[in-house]
This record gives sequence, C-alpha cells and structure tokens, in this order.
Amino acid sequence: MNDSETETAGMSEAELARHSEKMAKKKQAREKIMATKTDEKGLVIVHTGKGKGKSTAGFGMIFRHIAHGKPCAVVQFIKGAMMTGERELIEKHFSDVCQFHTLGEGFTWETQDRARDVAMAQKAWEKAKELIRDERNSMVLLDEINIALRYDYIDVAEVIEFLQTEKPHMTHVVLTGRNAKEELIEIADLATEMELLKHPFRSGIKAQIGVEF
Amino acid sequence: MNDSETETAGMSEAELARHSEKMAKKKQAREKIMATKTDEKGLVIVHTGKGKGKSTAGFGMIFRHIAHGKPCAVVQFIKGAMMTGERELIEKHFSDVCQFHTLGEGFTWETQDRARDVAMAQKAWEKAKELIRDERNSMVLLDEINIALRYDYIDVAEVIEFLQTEKPHMTHVVLTGRNAKEELIEIADLATEMELLKHPFRSGIKAQIGVEF
Repeated sequence: MNDSETETAGMSEAELARHSEKMAKKKQAREKIMATKTDEKGLVIVHTGKGKGKSTAGFGMIFRHIAHGKPCAVVQFIKGAMMTGERELIEKHFSDVCQFHTLGEGFTWETQDRARDVAMAQKAWEKAKELIRDERNSMVLLDEINIALRYDYIDVAEVIEFLQTEKPHMTHVVLTGRNAKEELIEIADLATEMELLKHPFRSGIKAQIGVEF
Repeated sequence: MNDSETETAGMSEAELARHSEKMAKKKQAREKIMATKTDEKGLVIVHTGKGKGKSTAGFGMIFRHIAHGKPCAVVQFIKGAMMTGERELIEKHFSDVCQFHTLGEGFTWETQDRARDVAMAQKAWEKAKELIRDERNSMVLLDEINIALRYDYIDVAEVIEFLQTEKPHMTHVVLTGRNAKEELIEIADLATEMELLKHPFRSGIKAQIGVEF
C-alpha cells in the first residue's frame, strides 16, 4: 500500500469528512459519559459461562495488579492441576506482591469423594476470607469458586453476605467458573459471560500448552 | 465447620454414594472424550463481544506462554494507551521471551483522522505478518485487530488468507476486539464471545487501575 492509497483508502474527500465528523461525535458522547463516572470502589467481578477465558482473564487482571505493584492474591478452589504456568511465574518472580494458594485439587469428578471436596473448598474459603479482610490486598482472585458454589461445597448466601459486609471498600474480588449462581451475579458490579462460539476439541484437537494450561 | 459436618455436609450415606457414582460417570465420559483428542496444532483464537476480558484473556495466554518459556509476541492495533501495565511488566521482565509492539494510538474516535488510522493499522498488520511468519514464535496476540477490521482499515479477506496459507502449522494467533467479522469467526478454531451481564459504569464507577488498565 503506497501513501496516496493510505490517505484515501477508497474514500472520497466527502466520505472522509463524514467519517471524521462521526468520530468527533463519538468522542464527545464518550467524554460526556466518562465525566459522570467519578467514583472509585472495589468491585465484585464475576466471570462465568461455558466459553474460554474466565480464569485466564482473571489472571490477566492479577498480572495487571502485579504490573502496577499493587498487592494481590489468588486462591484456587478446584483445579489445582491447571494454571500451573501462572503459578510458577508468579511464585518465581512476583511472590513479594502476589500470594498464591492452591487449596482445591483436580476437578471434583476426579476425586469422587464429596466429603474431601467439601473440606478442601471450605479450607479455600477460609483462606479467601483472610486474604480479602487484609486491606493491603487490592485484588483477590477466587479462581473456580463458582464450581464449589454450584455443588454447594460452599454456601452462596454466606459468600454474598461476606462480600457485602466484610469486604474492604477498595478491594476488588474476582470470582470465576462456569454456572455462576444467579444470586452472585445479582450482587456483582461487573459480570461477564464467556460464551463458546467455537471449540477445537470438537475437531479432535487436544489441550495444548500455553493455550489451555 | 467441624470435621463431622465437613464429612456429611448435609447428605445421607446414600446421597453421598450417588454423588460419588455420578462423579465417576462424569470422569469416565470425560476420559473417553479426551482420548479422542490427539492432534496438536496452532490455533486461530478469536475473543469478541461487548463484555470484558477479551484483551485481558489474550494477555493471560501470553503470560502463560512466558511462564512456559515459549517465545511469543504482541501487536497492539488500536489502544496504545491501554494495557500499559502489561506492556511495562513484559518489557521489564520478559523481553527475552516476548516481543511487544504498539502501533495503534488511542481509539479511532480520539484521532478523527482516518488516513492516519489506516496507515497505523497497515503498519501494525505488516509487523503482525512478520511476527507470525517467524516460526520461533509460539503465539502472536493481535490485540484489538477486530476494531481495525471492522472499520476496514485492514482487509479481512487478506487476514484470513494469510492465516490459512502462511501461518506456520504450530503457531497460535489470537485476535481480539469487539464486533469480530463473521468470516473471521468462521475460520477460527476457537472463538469466544465475552457477553456483558453487568457493568459498573452504569452505576457511576470510573475505570480503575488494575481492573480496566
């Protein structure tokens, strides 16, 4: 593409002017909206749905906190065997700013022992409460807690009450996992459903390093 | 919660046995499915939708590659001002394993200069092609390229043809941004729509460090 093509990109002068005007209006509208957004507070953030990216985006926010040097923590509720890459990276380089606790072990169908899974989930929840109560933490990621809530390994009413009454005002808490309880989405400040449009498992591709784990 | 509560968790022996049986069946079913997944190949991954987490999950995968010591690269197509935390973190600690190129500058409505935006997007696409062609890279993240495609700053047919004919077999390419073109989703191996369930801007909360940027 040469310079003159770049400059017109198939548009007439009039079209370019319209494009520019449209974008100026968008900018004005956006600035007007953003000017009304003045509060800061710690958010309750939920990532759910059958699609990819729930935990990955949660860890993305944790890395963003690490990047800003803001203390944070991760509690893994279910899949101890997954996200090991993140864990190693954080423990190796950033253990001064991010605590990492893996208390769940494997998916629940791996263990087939409900009593053990309940005990693990409760232990993870106790650790989560301790980390959230510690005002030094700017963000606490409760990875896959939704699975523990779904199987009633932890009581959702208790989690909601804790978030509403004991979470420090400026602390962000991120709760991930499919099948988030409706009550939790209700009280969330930010909730995203990761919806599966296409998945490579359907065409015989296995889980791969760097993508799935 | 004491130990005996933990062990029964409100379930009778019979209920516990049924739970265990159900989980055993789930495990069998999953193992059967996973055994058919034997191929490895580089995936074309699309994150789209109006919800949060598209770029964040993309960067999460990049951090996962970094964790495994696998060479990777990021090209930012639009929002040069965003994701600066990730950029600083990567450039400071992991520049040996991850290249970072920011070629877009701000959202398009910030500039109101289509010719400049087209030139920027084309430059970013040239860099993207160079990085993808380099077989050392295990993953290349094309952050916010969907916005450049939507405004036809880059030709989607050209991108698809490149991915189908020139992308090395084992290289993963991640394309993020809302309004992904249908044609792109068609050829993707893995596509996720991040759907907005709740957003704090609605209740007057501004973008916050570590969450939005």
